[in-house]
Amino acid sequence: MDRKDLARDLAAIVGPDHVRVDDGALAAYARDATPLFHSLPQAVVLPGSTEEVAAVLKYATERAVPVVPRGAGSNLCAGTVPLTGGIVLALTRLDRILEVSSEELLARVQTGVTTARLADAAAQAGLLYAPDPGSRTVSTVGGNVATCAGGLRGLKYGVTRNYVLGLEAVLPTGEIIRTGGRLWKDVAGYDLTRLLTGSEGTLAVITEVTVALLPAPAETGTGVAYFPSLADASRAVADVIASGIVPATLEFLDRKCISAVEEFAGLGLRQDAGALLLFGDDGDARAVATNLGRIQEVCDRAGALEVTLAEDVARADALLAARRCSLPALSRLGSVTILEDATVPRHRLAEMVDRIDEIAARHDLTIATFGHAGDGNLHPTCVLDPDDHEAVDRAHAAFAEIFAAAIALDGTITGEHGVGAAKLPYLADRLGADQVALLRRIKNAFDPAGILNPGKLGS
Amino acid sequence: MDRKDLARDLAAIVGPDHVRVDDGALAAYARDATPLFHSLPQAVVLPGSTEEVAAVLKYATERAVPVVPRGAGSNLCAGTVPLTGGIVLALTRLDRILEVSSEELLARVQTGVTTARLADAAAQAGLLYAPDPGSRTVSTVGGNVATCAGGLRGLKYGVTRNYVLGLEAVLPTGEIIRTGGRLWKDVAGYDLTRLLTGSEGTLAVITEVTVALLPAPAETGTGVAYFPSLADASRAVADVIASGIVPATLEFLDRKCISAVEEFAGLGLRQDAGALLLFGDDGDARAVATNLGRIQEVCDRAGALEVTLAEDVARADALLAARRCSLPALSRLGSVTILEDATVPRHRLAEMVDRIDEIAARHDLTIATFGHAGDGNLHPTCVLDPDDHEAVDRAHAAFAEIFAAAIALDGTITGEHGVGAAKLPYLADRLGADQVALLRRIKNAFDPAGILNPGKLGS
Repeated sequence: MDRKDLARDLAAIVGPDHVRVDDGALAAYARDATPLFHSLPQAVVLPGSTEEVAAVLKYATERAVPVVPRGAGSNLCAGTVPLTGGIVLALTRLDRILEVSSEELLARVQTGVTTARLADAAAQAGLLYAPDPGSRTVSTVGGNVATCAGGLRGLKYGVTRNYVLGLEAVLPTGEIIRTGGRLWKDVAGYDLTRLLTGSEGTLAVITEVTVALLPAPAETGTGVAYFPSLADASRAVADVIASGIVPATLEFLDRKCISAVEEFAGLGLRQDAGALLLFGDDGDARAVATNLGRIQEVCDRAGALEVTLAEDVARADALLAARRCSLPALSRLGSVTILEDATVPRHRLAEMVDRIDEIAARHDLTIATFGHAGDGNLHPTCVLDPDDHEAVDRAHAAFAEIFAAAIALDGTITGEHGVGAAKLPYLADRLGADQVALLRRIKNAFDPAGILNPGKLGS
Repeated sequence: MDRKDLARDLAAIVGPDHVRVDDGALAAYARDATPLFHSLPQAVVLPGSTEEVAAVLKYATERAVPVVPRGAGSNLCAGTVPLTGGIVLALTRLDRILEVSSEELLARVQTGVTTARLADAAAQAGLLYAPDPGSRTVSTVGGNVATCAGGLRGLKYGVTRNYVLGLEAVLPTGEIIRTGGRLWKDVAGYDLTRLLTGSEGTLAVITEVTVALLPAPAETGTGVAYFPSLADASRAVADVIASGIVPATLEFLDRKCISAVEEFAGLGLRQDAGALLLFGDDGDARAVATNLGRIQEVCDRAGALEVTLAEDVARADALLAARRCSLPALSRLGSVTILEDATVPRHRLAEMVDRIDEIAARHDLTIATFGHAGDGNLHPTCVLDPDDHEAVDRAHAAFAEIFAAAIALDGTITGEHGVGAAKLPYLADRLGADQVALLRRIKNAFDPAGILNPGKLGS
């Protein structure tokens, strides 16, 4: 519809200050953090309340205008790119922390609160918000729920899904629903809380989130081990699990990542190793010390070149920085980084990285891999020049092969980033045609006019 | 349709030995563990494979014959009563444990394996299957998933939902789908694994389940505390949580339960207490000892009459027996026990039990309450004579008030048993009309002919 009419109608709902139709705003909201995807919306609207979200959605359904909900726009699979134009519904103004209860071990926040702010508010009450996606300083809690965000602590603590107790959400047709609530046990009705978690803004718009918190662990410890090869590191991971320990953190960097991180940050990482394994645990102080000691022994026995426990918090933070700066370090190697998250069962990690290396070499691409060894969640990262169209084509071909390899190893095309527009072409390979057809029928049960985030999950 | 034709057609799918249409079988499958609900099916069919399940469902959809999937029939809310006749699909022949992997920390079982057999198989591999519903020796894993069964360890370990990694299920229209898989992180598509978990056999028939296992805890400890009143016990529970401990077990019995259990089992329980709190923890041996000691101190400070730690496994088992035999003990007081599971936020437990006692007195009923103090999951249990129709009417009126009271306290009508036929009339009070309408549309997306478990969730 006409951009001016749209702006006028939206301004009547949220006020003129909170509707943007200028070229600068439209260009800014045409992209998220995914390279190579962009598409201009007709308008950007920033509602200030759940009721305003409902009014926008009702309006959009009546006029069949697409609506793309968006938090911080840190999505890595083009999940918040407005592929067919329409309205970008930016939820960043809904940014109030509504309550943090140490009595009930929960927090209730509006959808646009950043994950780090929620975690900090919990920490101030002596509590832990366990999910810690890499994007936590910018990403929003609503966005985390919409993508079922993971993070570094997935194996021991689970992912966002495990911490969502209740949601307030608005259906595309404008009804406001409340799913779940403040309870650990509640089986009244289908589990819409979990169905909306990971639905990537295609079924409803999440406006408020209630999450479970844990008592903050008394102690946290971190260590690093270098191995001759990723296969050795992978064997060490298996041995750690077999020894009865489920560590809070088990991250790996391959040789290319170690080298890029060292060049970027100068942390003093060993350059002769084929793999770096970062491990950490938290909880009762003595249990942490015992577990870290046992992990050190297991790594030594598995052929580690060197194992070091961080003697203090500063050194532990430095080690964690090596993992957290993998992406910025790699992004210096080319003007675009395509970060993926194929996932395989933990014991097939080394096999999968071998496959990735082989595929990268065959397509003449630089692909470095880091990720979460504990839960088999890999982040193969391709660095290239986006103006080299041939290289871009080769990268697409390589990732198609990487996804197929992950599926063949009992894995999946996305562990924690989502499907979005980027991986929709591969979804039927993972789920089968019958299940994809079922997803479409579920989408239709929520969104009969098909206005919500078109061209993504359920399309 | 004609019973003989139905028997012939079903025999052609599963073989004549696995179809029952005799009066004895039909009567046996007319009920589950819910008192006062029964309805005869036309046939009972016991398939031996997923393909046979698919063929039965395809046949039933084509002829619009109702199908009610059933595991052990231990459901407590008439979730497996064939309200409108048709076929009872008994899944007990699908009882193979397919794998237990200590490398991958998972097990894969057919739907009809009992929970206890799965737990035993895990234990033999040094692993823990954490969910432990009270019915575990008879209930099936498929039934546990269909109801999202809870249990005694909900607060620390979560419920069935938190452990299901993947499902094989058959849609009412006969398609076999596989959701999730063997991964801790997998966000490819809507979370059908969790949507089917707790869907009470109304969306699809679960035929195979992959669950996450944990390393078995090194040590388990148990203690018991007696309090003058449930309000005191409830304050102690709040203080335990506030002290930073999330114990594996935190169960309570009210005065009426203590008395019934003592008369039934003669365990030497104190009769002068208003409430009994059973607590337990597991994990690293020193951490368990520390935590139990701190819980003991907290209970003493909160005014406990007496706190005892079980000195050995035999004594711990005896204490746990007090909790586990609450239902059989109460069932001796009348010929029928109606066991409910209204749930409220943990800190409102005493308030809720006061409300239950007031409602019971006003309706001249015996209602005793026990349950899971850690997650606010109460089991108010009404004991009566089913031939006293006036008493039955009063019990229904009382439970309607109990559900309304739970909702008013930010709680729910069912924490872990499910909605079934028994609580469907109260579902809209909990979810609102818009959400109930949405559940119906989701049901229709799975089951366009409406054959699967009619008169339950989604109806």
